[in-house]
Amino acid sequence: MDPKETLKAHILKTANLTDKEFDYLFSHFKLQSFKKGQAIISEGDKVDHEYFVISGCLKAFFINDEIKMYILQFAMPTWWTSDYGALYNHTRATISVDCLSDAEVLCLSNDDREKICSEIHQAEHFFRWRTNRGYLASQKRLLSFMNNDTKARYEELLAMYPQLYNLVPKHLIAAYLGVSRETLSRLYNAQK
Amino acid sequence: MDPKETLKAHILKTANLTDKEFDYLFSHFKLQSFKKGQAIISEGDKVDHEYFVISGCLKAFFINDEIKMYILQFAMPTWWTSDYGALYNHTRATISVDCLSDAEVLCLSNDDREKICSEIHQAEHFFRWRTNRGYLASQKRLLSFMNNDTKARYEELLAMYPQLYNLVPKHLIAAYLGVSRETLSRLYNAQK
Repeated sequence: MDPKETLKAHILKTANLTDKEFDYLFSHFKLQSFKKGQAIISEGDKVDHEYFVISGCLKAFFINDEIKMYILQFAMPTWWTSDYGALYNHTRATISVDCLSDAEVLCLSNDDREKICSEIHQAEHFFRWRTNRGYLASQKRLLSFMNNDTKARYEELLAMYPQLYNLVPKHLIAAYLGVSRETLSRLYNAQK
Repeated sequence: MDPKETLKAHILKTANLTDKEFDYLFSHFKLQSFKKGQAIISEGDKVDHEYFVISGCLKAFFINDEIKMYILQFAMPTWWTSDYGALYNHTRATISVDCLSDAEVLCLSNDDREKICSEIHQAEHFFRWRTNRGYLASQKRLLSFMNNDTKARYEELLAMYPQLYNLVPKHLIAAYLGVSRETLSRLYNAQK
């Protein structure tokens, strides 16, 4: 996949940028390659960038005081990820991001996003709707956690990422759902 | 509190609108008064508006199949609320909103928000950052639910709404935290 064309198709779904505006916007992104297992953001890091996935799969996760891992997001191609709390509030990372496979990402700094948004109205429009959608996904997930509805979380996960079950180790899917591996097996077998 | 000045001060914290631009934006809002207990959005409604609270306190909630209530948000003055899933996706309400006290709200339609955002770049900037902040709050709450950290949720709630404990019946605070009334009493007594 051509990184520039991938990002362009993604943005033009939401916003009307001219070719010239898109080229200008794109000039602020930097293509980076990572190896499977490599960390992109580690707890305690200064966070200056967000990442748009071109290929591969990343995970954004949190480790609690008992060293238990919680997965906030699997980031697949055309998904955005970062520790947005640290990025927006200029604090140190509490969320880590690493690579479940070799991956290519386009990275954009916080400063450049704000600059582009102030210069190009349609870029601001794109980023507003990107966050609106992220907000809805987060609310939906919050409700299924409040309601302790593991089955709903499992079905939402498969709907969002149909290919995930073959890509990602089962213990990581369990860490996303917040369930044990045994509960995950039960859900998986009930679906077949 | 004067509704217009309240909204103006709120928006100008984030965006630079001229007086003329703000007056134009404000002309799309409609002031509405509700009585304690009155419903603003009920499950199954068509949702066309979002609400900016001027006075009083609203709650946004979800009722599951077992008729158990989960509170997504207490909306106090200068907070925004709606069923954003239904509003953005043009689906019927699954989240309800009603009044914990008499309340005044400024309401804005989905169509008018989009019109204003396309006409005034700084209005789009304001709404982008409003959602960015909502997204962060939602992620923080999601993490504390995943991590099952009731104490963190309780402290976050008091930090966001210091006056809430005196305003809102205890069973509703428990429904926000996703705990029993007994657990809430334990947390409350531990804080004193």
